[in-house]
Amino acid sequence: MKNRLIFITNDDGFGALGIEKVIEVAKEFGRVVVIAPETMQSGQSHAITMYSPLSLRVVSKCDNVEIYACNGTPVDCVKMAFDHVLVDEKVDLVISGINHGSNSAINVLYSGTMGAAIEGSFYGCPAIGFSLLDHDLDADFSASQHYCREIIASVIDGDVSSSLCLNVNIPKGELETIKGIKVCRQCKGFWKERFVCRKDPRGADYFWLTGEFFNEEPLAEDTDNWALYHNYVSVVPIQVDLTDYSKMSSLQNILNSDI
Amino acid sequence: MKNRLIFITNDDGFGALGIEKVIEVAKEFGRVVVIAPETMQSGQSHAITMYSPLSLRVVSKCDNVEIYACNGTPVDCVKMAFDHVLVDEKVDLVISGINHGSNSAINVLYSGTMGAAIEGSFYGCPAIGFSLLDHDLDADFSASQHYCREIIASVIDGDVSSSLCLNVNIPKGELETIKGIKVCRQCKGFWKERFVCRKDPRGADYFWLTGEFFNEEPLAEDTDNWALYHNYVSVVPIQVDLTDYSKMSSLQNILNSDI
Repeated sequence: MKNRLIFITNDDGFGALGIEKVIEVAKEFGRVVVIAPETMQSGQSHAITMYSPLSLRVVSKCDNVEIYACNGTPVDCVKMAFDHVLVDEKVDLVISGINHGSNSAINVLYSGTMGAAIEGSFYGCPAIGFSLLDHDLDADFSASQHYCREIIASVIDGDVSSSLCLNVNIPKGELETIKGIKVCRQCKGFWKERFVCRKDPRGADYFWLTGEFFNEEPLAEDTDNWALYHNYVSVVPIQVDLTDYSKMSSLQNILNSDI
Repeated sequence: MKNRLIFITNDDGFGALGIEKVIEVAKEFGRVVVIAPETMQSGQSHAITMYSPLSLRVVSKCDNVEIYACNGTPVDCVKMAFDHVLVDEKVDLVISGINHGSNSAINVLYSGTMGAAIEGSFYGCPAIGFSLLDHDLDADFSASQHYCREIIASVIDGDVSSSLCLNVNIPKGELETIKGIKVCRQCKGFWKERFVCRKDPRGADYFWLTGEFFNEEPLAEDTDNWALYHNYVSVVPIQVDLTDYSKMSSLQNILNSDI
């Protein structure tokens, strides 16, 4: 198990505590290469940098762990790994995280952590995005480390698809309070948002986005948000076909389209 | 039909030719409010701005068309519309585009145009992302305008779901060369990419992302890429549940999870 190559990125930046904690676990499985954003990239979704060049610098190389910082998005970091730094190597697993904050439900769409995990799965190796439901800079990651270790081992040793992508969210709290792992579906819900408007010193308006998540199916026991609320680690397998097959035939009528 | 309220955004910026061309069509249906990015936001996916404030300025107000520019992403522009500028109004339709370049197949994930359209559909009104397969700054949008008009009319007059979201791609070429509209599913494919590495004047490396799309199912006649290749306008209905239901039971075994 010690001879694996694991690539790690995140969206909180290479210096975040969450990535440090998952590196500690990942290096138990072999060599670790990290390419993570220079700066906070929360909410960057699947964004890529097309109109400015990227830079890459070595942060440190020691103990079978190489860390690079890139001035792009989380998805840029994954592309930089597979298309430049690790182009001739076989990567066994992509890890993104551990994110500071939830990526359950609709958050998966906005999440830079999950954007990177999804991108990783496009390169023919399994990918896992880990998130802890705690935004504190000094959050307690000990229970997260326990479950990261367990899930990484299961995926690396398991008979899994090479395009497997998992969205793993971990409740806040000590290990003893967490009841186990639940495989779930993405919960339906929405963000109700408003902009806080302020005046700059010259009198011009500027706006900060704020919001609150509303769960549309709080009683649905097969959802990630239900699992997290009941102190389970939620694991949602991810795919990227966005086609809404249920609407195809009615659309054909509305648009008078062929076939 | 003249009394509709249509909100428009894009990812190429408020000054792009594609948005000008769809505004011309949309104002035939009523009042138009545009909030579009100040600058090019191609490849911004579903990104939101969380760690810096947004600004908004009036570009012009005339002929029942109001245009604002926002310094954020396409999704920020949609939130700015529904959570600030149009907060007390009923929007009948969200349009994103017309994008300069394809958003078919996996491009839907990276696309700022489609990020905005998807976000629009979260606010309880139908949303359409339009893209023309032509990157030229002075592309010919006449066929696009024809199909935009037809599809907007069908959606506004049709009995459609309030969460309907469409990914519409239009082949390059004159109107007579286009065979009609096809309702499709998202084609499977991937980008094979590489970084072009250059030296800055100080001798440090910098990298430009380049790549080529590979269609994994070129013969599948029900896909958007097949339709476009055969000169049809492709229309893919979009949903945002990323759960891979086909992997749930095998994952439960691998992870020894509950239920």
